[in-house]
This record gives sequence, structure tokens and C-alpha cells, in this order.
Amino acid sequence: MTSSSDSSNLTPNSRIIIQRCLSARLQIKPPTDENDAEWVEIGEGCVVYVCFLKGATSETVKKMALMVMNVKLSETKEKNVSILDLPGSVLIIPQATLGGKVKGKMMQYHCNIEKGIGRELYTEFVQMCNELMEKSTKYTEASCVVRNGTYGNRQVFSTVTNGPYTHYFEF
Amino acid sequence: MTSSSDSSNLTPNSRIIIQRCLSARLQIKPPTDENDAEWVEIGEGCVVYVCFLKGATSETVKKMALMVMNVKLSETKEKNVSILDLPGSVLIIPQATLGGKVKGKMMQYHCNIEKGIGRELYTEFVQMCNELMEKSTKYTEASCVVRNGTYGNRQVFSTVTNGPYTHYFEF
Repeated sequence: MTSSSDSSNLTPNSRIIIQRCLSARLQIKPPTDENDAEWVEIGEGCVVYVCFLKGATSETVKKMALMVMNVKLSETKEKNVSILDLPGSVLIIPQATLGGKVKGKMMQYHCNIEKGIGRELYTEFVQMCNELMEKSTKYTEASCVVRNGTYGNRQVFSTVTNGPYTHYFEF
Repeated sequence: MTSSSDSSNLTPNSRIIIQRCLSARLQIKPPTDENDAEWVEIGEGCVVYVCFLKGATSETVKKMALMVMNVKLSETKEKNVSILDLPGSVLIIPQATLGGKVKGKMMQYHCNIEKGIGRELYTEFVQMCNELMEKSTKYTEASCVVRNGTYGNRQVFSTVTNGPYTHYFEF
């Protein structure tokens, strides 16, 4: 039993999972004694789980954002299109556990990037997705949004889909 | 930009994603003119997305099932435990798209196993997970279940989680 980087000569710098959704809702601030939890929500579009591994740079982030926004994973009645062409919304979720490698019955996260750098790259990634979306005419004409979870938080989350159409990528 | 097997010498035989859930619901039969859709549901436990690639065998299935049931990805107040020790339920979802490799802006699925063989291995996998669970004392004492989606169907699906804790594996 191996995780992907076990069986790879070229260790990846990041991992992404993309799933289609009809709606999704993510907690961005846990509840406190004084305040309710805060949430972000999207309608039709996709959920993007992101994990940075050792070696990830701004160049990795750029490739990831371009792929997420342009690869044809979304569905119209006629054909598959990019999320920009759907147009649809994007919910970005930081997911450090994606960097895990199994050892015996336990998970290890030795390949994950140092948390501070991971947080910076995550912020860059969210910003770049936003920029790519804002440049798109279809996107700005529709009521689509880019939303994102808080790095380091617990990702309390729910989603509804008519087919997750799950795809996995490494960069 | 590469999918995992691009950067790997050893091409994997299968891919799995595991996510924790508080509840999950999957359509196993689409609605018809005469009948409503049929669904399966689980409570606390995990959702397991499964994809078989060329080269997968019953041996692959065995390794996968043993890992899913025994790796410590579930959470108690004190520590991480296996789904058998939680004990929790399992919802298995066939997900051929996980075999995708990106080429330009399109996805290709040349590595996926032939559909008939994939269906057989999927059935074996579900059966083996059921057997492993039925052998577990904790499991049989609790009201946990193993549920699974229909191979080849559209996976209409919803889930709620207090942290998906997403993990990715190749075999």
C-alpha cells in the first residue's frame, strides 16, 4: 500500500481534489460564547480541496489556479466546460490531510509544507482564482462567487451534488 | 501540470479517497415515471470514493479493503482510530473519474480499467468491506452499516461533515 509520492520519483509539490457541486457550505469561523459560527456558501460550481507539500512555490500556485479555472470539469447540457465557461462558483478548502502518507495503520504528514509558507501560498492561490474569475466576462455577468475556507481551521462542511465527478491532480 | 501517474514510474492499479462524515446520502436508483428515486444513507463514519485502473486485481481489492477498514482516520475525543474501532458506517461510491489524467484542458481516462472488470472488482471490494465489518465485535454491537453506490450510475449525493479530513491513496 503506497500513497502517490511513495511510488513516484518526482515528489509532487501540491495536491488538489475537485468535485462538482449544486451547493456547498463551509464554516469559516467557529461559534464562540458571544457569537454564532460564520459560514460561506456557493451554489452550482465546484469544491476545490488544496494541499501544499514541501517544494511548493508561487509558480506551483499559478499552475494550480490556471488549471482549476480552465480545465473542463463542469457540465452543460451539451458538453463539459471550464468553471469559467459554466459559469459557476468555486469553494476553496484548505486540506492539509491530503499530504498524508500511510505508515502501518497511521498517517504521517512529513511531506507537508511548513504551516506559515502553506498559509501564504494558500492566500496567493485564493487571490489568483479570484483574479482569473474577475477577468472572465461570463463570470462577472452571472452571480458566481469565489469563496474560501480559513487556513488551519477545522473545515465544517456540507455539500449537495448530482454527481461529484471527482478528479485528483498533483503539481 | 501532471496527474499522479504522470510523475510515477510505478503506475497505480487503483485510487481511493476517504472523507469523514457525520451523515451522507447517495442515490442508488434514479427516479422513473412510476417510481421515486432510491437512496442509501449512513450516519457518522466515512465516505470512500473508489476507482480501478488497468492492472487492478483481487489482490489490489484485498489491500484496499484492509486499509480502508484499519487505517486510523476516524476520530474519538482522545485519539484517531480505525472505522472499525470508532465504530462507524461506510458509504462506498464508485468514482471512475478519479482515474482521469489532464491533457491540455481536457480529461482522459485511458488508465481506467475495462468497465466489466471494474464492476467485478467493485463488487468484490464492497463484499470484502462488509465481511471485515461483520467480523468486528464493536461494529456488530453498534448500529453501523456498509452502504454502496451502483457501479456506472450517476452518483447523486449529499454529505455533512465537521471536517472532511480528506486522504488520498493509491495501490
